[in-house]
Amino acid sequence: MSSLHGSIDLNADLGEGFGRWTLTDDERLLSVVTSANVACGFHAGDPVTMRRVCELAAERGVRIGAQVSYRDLAGFGRRAMDVPPAELAAEVAYQIGALEVFARAAGTRVSYVKPHGALYNRVVHDGEQAAAVVDGVLLADATLPVLGLPGSRFLEVAQAAGLPAVTEAFADRAYTDEGTLVPRGREGAVITDADAVVARSVSLAAEGTVTSHSGTRIPVRARSLCLHGDTPGAVELARRVRAELTAAGTRVEAFS
Amino acid sequence: MSSLHGSIDLNADLGEGFGRWTLTDDERLLSVVTSANVACGFHAGDPVTMRRVCELAAERGVRIGAQVSYRDLAGFGRRAMDVPPAELAAEVAYQIGALEVFARAAGTRVSYVKPHGALYNRVVHDGEQAAAVVDGVLLADATLPVLGLPGSRFLEVAQAAGLPAVTEAFADRAYTDEGTLVPRGREGAVITDADAVVARSVSLAAEGTVTSHSGTRIPVRARSLCLHGDTPGAVELARRVRAELTAAGTRVEAFS
Amino acid sequence: MSSLHGSIDLNADLGEGFGRWTLTDDERLLSVVTSANVACGFHAGDPVTMRRVCELAAERGVRIGAQVSYRDLAGFGRRAMDVPPAELAAEVAYQIGALEVFARAAGTRVSYVKPHGALYNRVVHDGEQAAAVVDGVLLADATLPVLGLPGSRFLEVAQAAGLPAVTEAFADRAYTDEGTLVPRGREGAVITDADAVVARSVSLAAEGTVTSHSGTRIPVRARSLCLHGDTPGAVELARRVRAELTAAGTRVEAFS
Amino acid sequence: MSSLHGSIDLNADLGEGFGRWTLTDDERLLSVVTSANVACGFHAGDPVTMRRVCELAAERGVRIGAQVSYRDLAGFGRRAMDVPPAELAAEVAYQIGALEVFARAAGTRVSYVKPHGALYNRVVHDGEQAAAVVDGVLLADATLPVLGLPGSRFLEVAQAAGLPAVTEAFADRAYTDEGTLVPRGREGAVITDADAVVARSVSLAAEGTVTSHSGTRIPVRARSLCLHGDTPGAVELARRVRAELTAAGTRVEAFS
Repeated sequence: MSSLHGSIDLNADLGEGFGRWTLTDDERLLSVVTSANVACGFHAGDPVTMRRVCELAAERGVRIGAQVSYRDLAGFGRRAMDVPPAELAAEVAYQIGALEVFARAAGTRVSYVKPHGALYNRVVHDGEQAAAVVDGVLLADATLPVLGLPGSRFLEVAQAAGLPAVTEAFADRAYTDEGTLVPRGREGAVITDADAVVARSVSLAAEGTVTSHSGTRIPVRARSLCLHGDTPGAVELARRVRAELTAAGTRVEAFS
Repeated sequence: MSSLHGSIDLNADLGEGFGRWTLTDDERLLSVVTSANVACGFHAGDPVTMRRVCELAAERGVRIGAQVSYRDLAGFGRRAMDVPPAELAAEVAYQIGALEVFARAAGTRVSYVKPHGALYNRVVHDGEQAAAVVDGVLLADATLPVLGLPGSRFLEVAQAAGLPAVTEAFADRAYTDEGTLVPRGREGAVITDADAVVARSVSLAAEGTVTSHSGTRIPVRARSLCLHGDTPGAVELARRVRAELTAAGTRVEAFS
Repeated sequence: MSSLHGSIDLNADLGEGFGRWTLTDDERLLSVVTSANVACGFHAGDPVTMRRVCELAAERGVRIGAQVSYRDLAGFGRRAMDVPPAELAAEVAYQIGALEVFARAAGTRVSYVKPHGALYNRVVHDGEQAAAVVDGVLLADATLPVLGLPGSRFLEVAQAAGLPAVTEAFADRAYTDEGTLVPRGREGAVITDADAVVARSVSLAAEGTVTSHSGTRIPVRARSLCLHGDTPGAVELARRVRAELTAAGTRVEAFS
Repeated sequence: MSSLHGSIDLNADLGEGFGRWTLTDDERLLSVVTSANVACGFHAGDPVTMRRVCELAAERGVRIGAQVSYRDLAGFGRRAMDVPPAELAAEVAYQIGALEVFARAAGTRVSYVKPHGALYNRVVHDGEQAAAVVDGVLLADATLPVLGLPGSRFLEVAQAAGLPAVTEAFADRAYTDEGTLVPRGREGAVITDADAVVARSVSLAAEGTVTSHSGTRIPVRARSLCLHGDTPGAVELARRVRAELTAAGTRVEAFS
């Protein structure tokens, strides 16, 4: 996502309903993003929704990724769990396989893996769980790219195992001077001003930099930008981000 | 399973534990059967167990089938459910995909599909659910054989859709004169005498006939014989059946 | 709900979210209804939501009922299931007990039981499941009223078992000449015109009659009127119904 | 469990099956223990089993306790989870309420609460989760005793909140010199020699002491002794423990 690339991928979480419940505006998000993180049934994502999202994504040329999670419907995958590595690896593979059937039926493939929620945060630092997730991906397909935080244990372990590691950034999250995310819950951790989010997106994509929480300009080099789709106005904001990126001369396209 | 074939497939349900709970003696059953119906997580079957059973089956050259079920862990898939067709089809595909990842990781493939429990019984007569299961199989892989009861709506619909339909018989279940199973719960529905089960296995495999509940010799032509593995002494009985079939000149091998 | 009573109870389904997902506008509905059918965790309803709805209901003097369901989060309890009677009875009691803890903590009690979704429809005709639900209620509290359709097997069995049977009507559903509901899916089964719903509410409450699908005026005597809260504009419509009932001289109060 | 008491309570986990799966030999264990920790559906324990165990316990005068757990059927409650306090408290209350309905139907009451598995271990040190579990117990019944490890945060917080705190010891687990349990997984953590378990039981009950991992005699004062029922020979061992305790002059009876 730096000037070296000249292009940026836009990813968002999709299909995060379950049965009667819906959350993400899948159809409209699929007209904005280039990569769709599809929930696989462990924190959200029933089979009918998975199928439909895969079909829509395939129609629009949006790439499908498996958004793998702890098995925790009640907590939406937001409660960290001490899952033994062998269990976690098998659970990750199970979810990828389940999604793959719908991706293939839609004429495409699962093209990357991104952990969800508490698992995403855990594998930033926890080498054992990071390795277990990587093992799960390897079980499913040893060529699958994984999406994660620059500098995370997860991306390190993935790369060491031969998996393509794709970095991502968040335009609506505050960064520390060290380039890590300010934890949710801290004041100012989430940036809600639309203009600021747009400006940060452009800066992240075009220059590979962002202004940290303390006001310093820091480098954050990422190939993909994560957009959020489960808040009011989120789709409009995502559209603006995409339009401004294009206007600023950054190609919006899936990472290669 | 008639003399026309000269060979018979032996299938059994495997991997029917869940987490801390175990049910089937997977290792020993895999030394007897030629086809393993592996639980896929909806009535039983956690990812770790699915992985292990697939590895063991692959090592021993036992074919792996997806034992698909209603989503009903609490009822072990034995409670019939009015699942709308689109949901049922997607749920079936989901389960096949989840198992496929472990079959592939073990160097093999999911080679057939067999419905479990209440779903198995329902699709004998219910054309709508039968079609939904077939749709689910088609979503996953339009070349997968399905295993079912001779004369069932399920096999009819599958065949009409171009799926190979494989018939199976039960040596430990009583048959009506019409060739259907005497419902569980009726007196004599389940045959527990080991000698009788062995004799019926040989007769089903070598001649394609069995003695009905009323004492009449009836034709039951099947390519596969279903053995049960979740009762005490089941593995020993399965071994005897296999030995006697071989002694009687019937080759025990996976259906082609 | 006839002129004999001079008063009508208004009930609605509440707390039908699960974890991250929400569905019903619980706070606003609790300012309209007199009886709250609270989801108990089997088709919807996580413990945090159950607790909060009980607290809000207690504050506002709204009576709490247990909305018991098949165990079916994925299908929102809308898929009929052949649950053996002993299992169904125990599952019903379990749900009532779980809700009771939050009702008591809020200073009140579970005051009635209403089956949800597919179970509601099943026990209209299925005597075995109706008896199982009644057994479950008896296990929990042999004095609890149950809410159901006039003429249903459920209310018959409940009454025979000594439980108070409370009849309910639906102002937004079409009735046959025989007084049963026109099945969902048939044309005109659901009445969406707000004025018609209000007029039917008043007629049901004040006169105990309603115009059937064929245009005939038929008697439908009910002590409670079910309002729906999960559609856009539902709360506003519920408010109008309540205001018009009051204006027409019908007291809106919980059934005694 | 010291000589001050002259009596000891014996508790064990019961009802730890789920649907088709069984684990604990509930009937035979109920002839040995004085307190039954009944699984409430979150790590194990379906409603039919809960009902049956409560009936058997009531018949035999065995006290019923709620064995509350993280919501984790797949992991049998053995995977620690970062559950936010408000969720954990409500989940604990939910489980107690669900069990209470079956205890009351059997003519008795839930008489204490004991956390299960990973939750049990977590609240030894984690004050926040300990407080959440206590909040859940208070929601259900502010007079309920809780069972836990001597010196645990859980018992401290419970006592501060006015709940009776009952200490327990493990005859088949090794202790450190500080009186904490040697973690499972370490060599010698679990004592499998039956004679040793019996001797330690007598010493714990009669003298309030046990030999630590390093060979030192240390004080472990407990009112209840936890027996395990899910291993081969467990029931026989439990019987021997009870017989030897009685022979040694210690009364085996529920804590008061």
